[in-house]
Amino acid sequence: MKKSINPINNVEYTIPKNLDDINSINDFVSRNKNKKIIVVQGLGFVGSVMSIVCANSKLEDYAVIGIDLPNEFNYWKIASINEGIFPIVAEDKKIETFFKKTLKIGNFYATYDPYAYSLADIIIVDINLDVEKKLNNDFSLKHFDVNMNPFKSAIKSIGQNCQKDSLVLVETTVPPGTCEKVVKPIITKELKKRNLDFDQIKIAHSYERVMPGPDYIDSILNFPRVFSGIDQKSATAAKVFLETIINTEKYPLTELQNTNSTEIAKVLENSYRAMNIAFIVEWTRFAEEANVNLFEVIDSIKVRSTHSNMMLPGIGVGGYCLTKDPLLASWSRKKMFSSSELNQSEKAVIINDQMPRYAFEFFKINFGKSLKNKTVLFLGVSYRGDVGDTRFTPVEKMYDLFIKNGAKILLNDPLVPFWEEKDLKVETSLKKSLKTKFDIVILCTNHSIYKSNKLTTELNKIDKELYLYDTLGVLKKNQISNLNSNIKTLVLGRGDLIEK
Amino acid sequence: MKKSINPINNVEYTIPKNLDDINSINDFVSRNKNKKIIVVQGLGFVGSVMSIVCANSKLEDYAVIGIDLPNEFNYWKIASINEGIFPIVAEDKKIETFFKKTLKIGNFYATYDPYAYSLADIIIVDINLDVEKKLNNDFSLKHFDVNMNPFKSAIKSIGQNCQKDSLVLVETTVPPGTCEKVVKPIITKELKKRNLDFDQIKIAHSYERVMPGPDYIDSILNFPRVFSGIDQKSATAAKVFLETIINTEKYPLTELQNTNSTEIAKVLENSYRAMNIAFIVEWTRFAEEANVNLFEVIDSIKVRSTHSNMMLPGIGVGGYCLTKDPLLASWSRKKMFSSSELNQSEKAVIINDQMPRYAFEFFKINFGKSLKNKTVLFLGVSYRGDVGDTRFTPVEKMYDLFIKNGAKILLNDPLVPFWEEKDLKVETSLKKSLKTKFDIVILCTNHSIYKSNKLTTELNKIDKELYLYDTLGVLKKNQISNLNSNIKTLVLGRGDLIEK
Repeated sequence: MKKSINPINNVEYTIPKNLDDINSINDFVSRNKNKKIIVVQGLGFVGSVMSIVCANSKLEDYAVIGIDLPNEFNYWKIASINEGIFPIVAEDKKIETFFKKTLKIGNFYATYDPYAYSLADIIIVDINLDVEKKLNNDFSLKHFDVNMNPFKSAIKSIGQNCQKDSLVLVETTVPPGTCEKVVKPIITKELKKRNLDFDQIKIAHSYERVMPGPDYIDSILNFPRVFSGIDQKSATAAKVFLETIINTEKYPLTELQNTNSTEIAKVLENSYRAMNIAFIVEWTRFAEEANVNLFEVIDSIKVRSTHSNMMLPGIGVGGYCLTKDPLLASWSRKKMFSSSELNQSEKAVIINDQMPRYAFEFFKINFGKSLKNKTVLFLGVSYRGDVGDTRFTPVEKMYDLFIKNGAKILLNDPLVPFWEEKDLKVETSLKKSLKTKFDIVILCTNHSIYKSNKLTTELNKIDKELYLYDTLGVLKKNQISNLNSNIKTLVLGRGDLIEK
Repeated sequence: MKKSINPINNVEYTIPKNLDDINSINDFVSRNKNKKIIVVQGLGFVGSVMSIVCANSKLEDYAVIGIDLPNEFNYWKIASINEGIFPIVAEDKKIETFFKKTLKIGNFYATYDPYAYSLADIIIVDINLDVEKKLNNDFSLKHFDVNMNPFKSAIKSIGQNCQKDSLVLVETTVPPGTCEKVVKPIITKELKKRNLDFDQIKIAHSYERVMPGPDYIDSILNFPRVFSGIDQKSATAAKVFLETIINTEKYPLTELQNTNSTEIAKVLENSYRAMNIAFIVEWTRFAEEANVNLFEVIDSIKVRSTHSNMMLPGIGVGGYCLTKDPLLASWSRKKMFSSSELNQSEKAVIINDQMPRYAFEFFKINFGKSLKNKTVLFLGVSYRGDVGDTRFTPVEKMYDLFIKNGAKILLNDPLVPFWEEKDLKVETSLKKSLKTKFDIVILCTNHSIYKSNKLTTELNKIDKELYLYDTLGVLKKNQISNLNSNIKTLVLGRGDLIEK
């Protein structure tokens, strides 16, 4: 018997052998008479939240069925939802409110049975499409590829079951060209096989800008959206649907001329950010060489609105999107449009992947001693401040380098009690972490609690030689100058080791 | 007898053989008793305007002496100023007002005699420091270097004459490290030679953000400033001076920790812009391949404040700053800090230099016919919309490519009656240009007059096959769709040739 475990509460579920869920689905639908049926494909960070947002629409009564695969990694989400436990822990209180309301109304059900597609008016594709990336030991890019097969299977499953006139709305970040060159041909082929008229199917693309964290729900509800369709009826259907979900009065929709356009928009958006982070990497080194505080320099430049997007020095880039989207775009240009790569966008990812190594080397040179048996306290393992998300966090690479150099590591993160990718427990109390013994303390994530004076006050109570390394400019100038003389401070993006 | 000609009005001046101007300078100073003396070194785009801004300070009475070299290229500026003719033609009406006021008060004089430095309380360095750039035939970078000698001579001339406690304020965009590693050693050495105490000299750096055009004066007066000094007394002196010039109540000054910092700030600021332009180049090609209107895509992304600095597709980068500053920075890192180049910043310049070639090739492929004996009307030769500045304009490269391919070129630019670098007359009336016969019309510069319906209305009156190429997205969607069917339209950054 195969199991699937909910990592949040460790509850174990047995994956059913009989994968027929038709009766339960039919029961759910008959309990939700006269409601439009939405099926959300994929119950991850986007799909699960999109599901409850749809089920809470103020303008239309939807019955929502979330669907995912009945395997080790996903079945627990299905089982949890149907037991009344939401599969994501988030700071955003609205998540709980929205989910509870669906339980009360009974308009949200989860399943693994593709039969659900056959009842759907609208099918929303929220599955992942990953880049397979292999790095060398120095974190330089060895090889990358996009495996379209899981995505193609998921679309095929829709085509095998859906009604001939449903709306298939793709929200997944895809290689540009996917809706026209992959989704449309697969669904058309399957409809033909079923002897169905394939002219009425509607395929649209509208990328999400979901941001896990305190504004999780608002990043769907209150955020500008772009959409497009493979034809006008598809675009119109997407518009009508999105208007029932998004606060379009405040955040108007933008229709682009074809699905390539919205697909490009999403990866361009993220490539822009990755690029601007990569750009600052070299300037960070230059600033260190020239004894320049790059944080102050950038602050002075950013007063110009033409320069307000300039990024700051840091330990690296993490998260699900920025680490792969530029590669997705470049892969698409090569494979789907038979052109050349997006050289600069690929370079951006390559440079960003190596930032933790730069950050480590800068530390090592300035520290000047062996790290063997030194105890290092990492403050933050999440890839982003005030968010508990460790996917592709650059802290992982820093961690590996310190371990490789013989250091002993203590971990602290107020929002990550357990570091899944590393299978490690993490202390969430800053106070407790600061009470343990350590030689080096490294600021790795921009969490608010580290910015407050709590940290510096507690550090000043420690009566021994300490080395503080700020990899993100978390501490303010006056906080650093108020530190005791036993604390040497090093800031990435500044040339001067601050000794008292 | 050597001559120097004012290119604005063609007045010819004879350069004096006897370069002693002491009596006139002394007369000027005695006429301006009790005023602080400012000497501005360099009477170009920055220095000449900075001079009249200083002379018009509301908070301090300054007598300003502008100084430049008595050679063919610069002497006419000196002579013109002293004859009451300002050496720059600009749209900004304030320039005339400010200059006339100095004539009335008599507190602005121009000379070539370094004797002026000996009377100065403040010396402002506004000379050029150029990158020598050699391009291959395809506009790729063959070689570049920075020749510091003219700058060093200018600084030496200050050191040989200045008072031991004057303030030398460098506004020139310099390779980072210049104030500490070049200016300070040269001036110190010259003061020593003159047996003067060299501890009292004040050297500061504060870069200008002068933007020729309608807000010329305001780009000095009403713009945030960053400054720094080689020591605290230098920084303080710079601050006291800048507060008498800049509207610091609305645009507060920012002091950075050393001169490297402000020097880096300026070149980083311009590299950021060059980089973001270069980044869009590859995406423009991608959009063309995927039949995507990149202008619309970028508009939809820019609604996010985190992405508001995204640049648009275009013909290339011109002007004095963005074409060289990233190289200046990279050169400095290599030569002054014995480190590696700023690879991405150099790449940005290299990519941008080639944009006119991309723009030309995109046209050629879509046009599909020989350009031999075709008449091409260029709308715009300036490198920037609503500014009459042809320095390093990318239009020059486009021009060369069309000529090379056998085309005949007609030029139009409302703000450039004469194209100095090409020694060509330019028609300023759009109406007249549109009345001549041509086969192809190319929008090269974003001037307001080209954006108005005037252009499309006039084009619609032409009763023959026309090819319109918009290299900057100047025309709106509805303007293009209102064009007659005899006008084929091609827009850079869009994949579709618009035929009616």
